[in-house]
Amino acid sequence: VASAEIITIGTEMLLGQLVDTNTAVIARALAEIGVDVRRETSVGDNEASIAAAVVDAIGRAEVVVCAGGLGPTVDDMTRGAVAAALERPLVLDPESNRHLEAMFARLKRPMAENNRVQAYFPQGAEPLPNPHGSAPGFVVERDGRAVLALPGPPRELQPMLHDHAVPWIERRFTPNAVLVTRVLRTAGVGESDLDARIAELFRAQKNPSIAMLAHPGLVDVKVTAKAATRGAAHAMIAELEPAIRARLGDCVYGVDGETLESVAGALLRRRGMTLAIGESCTGGAVAAAIASVPGASAYFRGGVVAYANEAKCRLLDVAPDLIDRYGAVSEEVAGAMAVGAQASLRADVGISVTGIAGPDGGTPEKPVGLVYIGLALPDGSVSIRRLDWPGSRDAIQRRAVVAALASLWRALRYSDN
Amino acid sequence: VASAEIITIGTEMLLGQLVDTNTAVIARALAEIGVDVRRETSVGDNEASIAAAVVDAIGRAEVVVCAGGLGPTVDDMTRGAVAAALERPLVLDPESNRHLEAMFARLKRPMAENNRVQAYFPQGAEPLPNPHGSAPGFVVERDGRAVLALPGPPRELQPMLHDHAVPWIERRFTPNAVLVTRVLRTAGVGESDLDARIAELFRAQKNPSIAMLAHPGLVDVKVTAKAATRGAAHAMIAELEPAIRARLGDCVYGVDGETLESVAGALLRRRGMTLAIGESCTGGAVAAAIASVPGASAYFRGGVVAYANEAKCRLLDVAPDLIDRYGAVSEEVAGAMAVGAQASLRADVGISVTGIAGPDGGTPEKPVGLVYIGLALPDGSVSIRRLDWPGSRDAIQRRAVVAALASLWRALRYSDN
Repeated sequence: VASAEIITIGTEMLLGQLVDTNTAVIARALAEIGVDVRRETSVGDNEASIAAAVVDAIGRAEVVVCAGGLGPTVDDMTRGAVAAALERPLVLDPESNRHLEAMFARLKRPMAENNRVQAYFPQGAEPLPNPHGSAPGFVVERDGRAVLALPGPPRELQPMLHDHAVPWIERRFTPNAVLVTRVLRTAGVGESDLDARIAELFRAQKNPSIAMLAHPGLVDVKVTAKAATRGAAHAMIAELEPAIRARLGDCVYGVDGETLESVAGALLRRRGMTLAIGESCTGGAVAAAIASVPGASAYFRGGVVAYANEAKCRLLDVAPDLIDRYGAVSEEVAGAMAVGAQASLRADVGISVTGIAGPDGGTPEKPVGLVYIGLALPDGSVSIRRLDWPGSRDAIQRRAVVAALASLWRALRYSDN
Repeated sequence: VASAEIITIGTEMLLGQLVDTNTAVIARALAEIGVDVRRETSVGDNEASIAAAVVDAIGRAEVVVCAGGLGPTVDDMTRGAVAAALERPLVLDPESNRHLEAMFARLKRPMAENNRVQAYFPQGAEPLPNPHGSAPGFVVERDGRAVLALPGPPRELQPMLHDHAVPWIERRFTPNAVLVTRVLRTAGVGESDLDARIAELFRAQKNPSIAMLAHPGLVDVKVTAKAATRGAAHAMIAELEPAIRARLGDCVYGVDGETLESVAGALLRRRGMTLAIGESCTGGAVAAAIASVPGASAYFRGGVVAYANEAKCRLLDVAPDLIDRYGAVSEEVAGAMAVGAQASLRADVGISVTGIAGPDGGTPEKPVGLVYIGLALPDGSVSIRRLDWPGSRDAIQRRAVVAALASLWRALRYSDN
């Protein structure tokens, strides 16, 4: 198994102004091809620090992947630092230089001279193309070991990593062990409950290993297998998965990259049903989650963000009297909003959220964190869920969105329509 | 200025299954007391790796802060690794042992024998209390340098860091420099343009230093000053800020924690104006951004997520004829949606977004990434912006939200109402 280290470059990380998400992305990609990441180091925008980290890392590992410091500014020092660490000069790559000039010409913007530094690489390096930015990456080898440099912005790093860096490493180091992860996504059951359900399996298992990762309202169960081939790893997981699912029960809504909104969307599509949303305290976030799924227009009619009470009445046909009598945050109004969304947007299913996200607006009877979720189904039935969590405005809004999507998923799942 | 390194411990980070957020939290806390974080290292749950990282770090820095590996399981190796790195035995701390036993008694749970390892520390260490979990931290000194070990779970780490670790470091290393950062937030100007505007200042300045951080559609300019006191650092920034602002021009929408939505919201509130939103391709995300601001109910009337064309006509009074003639993604429909949102929600300002987020639905004339933003103001004027970026569905939606909020901010800023 090839060994690797990751070096992330940026003073902002060492000042705590930026959370480093690149390491996790790179580490996952390397794990998937069976490369063993032994250490990760973050250093600031300082040529000597970067060079020292590269020298240390290449002394311990076969592959060193650097992220950051490839831009055109004086703060971008990775090119020079890698060259210094490997004792190579920086040389101009004519092809990259032409590519840079062409890119600026296409954007109809003058190319500042400082941009040209992005066409310089340590002697012997192979540039890695960057279709999403002006900074090419590169890979350079010495004594059977390799240093790769990728740009820091995630939307530039990720395509270069997956399209160029990982395939290069895979070709060059022909790893003989791969890691495959299967994620079972659950909703509505707490982490400690799930832990109790699978504790016995969890403790016994080393390969595949089982781990849990909790998000607000959701818990992912990750099963990871190590084997010589991808197929063998998949087979190990396939053998174990039924036993895990049997213990988890009916809270598994999806696997791997699936989300509550993608799973609910697929169920709507399969059943030929359409959806409308009427929401207040979540402010449009439930609709935005539904609309984030490619192809949502096949089933998503739209939504009303009924923040003011008048909007609830005018656009969702909630009777003003109902609001006066029970309050805007009530079982009755949640039901009327779900039915109103369903009717006014001519959808099969209507879902509503009304609640108090805070920080102000709570009372002893209706505290901050009280949320009602309404669900109107094609058969005319209306169901309401009452939820009550403390927390910040942001946390309450996020939990309410998850709860609304989970209610939708559960209703669709058991719908025989 | 005291120097520090951070070591985060956990195999999940090196497998890419967990993003390390502890480093940013620790780094920010250390920066605030003027401690200079030079490097961060992540290692797996392996005693030899952790010990090697501690030995390296303590050879370079005066303070080493470790996070993770303090739990009761066989995977938790930080206590032993720090003891090995400093060549000290692990000894039982009777006080911590009593505390652990009392905690389990209070929880009415039997204390498993493996929990007792949490009362062992490297000889000479001072335990750091953990009110949120069973794992105490500790600090241990050698030759005028210090290693601190904190638990990995953020809700345990953060109180211990702020209540115990940082005060200890501050007392022990009496730092004579604090770092203060001021962020000027800009919209509508690219990173390289901004860089060119402030390059001269940027290169000349070491303290305060100037750095840029680009987000989609937005660029933050960060000014960081180092001084003996917080007041002196603030004064250095205050002296430089006018010169930076003069060069940045009118693209600065806010400072520090302000966002486009919070700044636009404050302008609406100050002008006594209300807002309504009609959006299609952003699916509710513009409304959700507006509603994420505490107190938004004072000015936010609501929105319509007009995903289906019928919703545009029924809820936003867009003439069906207009959609037939120009298409749902057109200047004409964007204008009608803004006016329709303004009218149907009885708001002073209406803002609309219609576009093609993809991945499907594009044509040669109207490609994926084409977005129109409409703005209807109280004086009856309607303006439209046309935008066209390539990218993923998610990227297009996010850019459209930022562009809609930026249009709103610019309109309100220059409104004399």
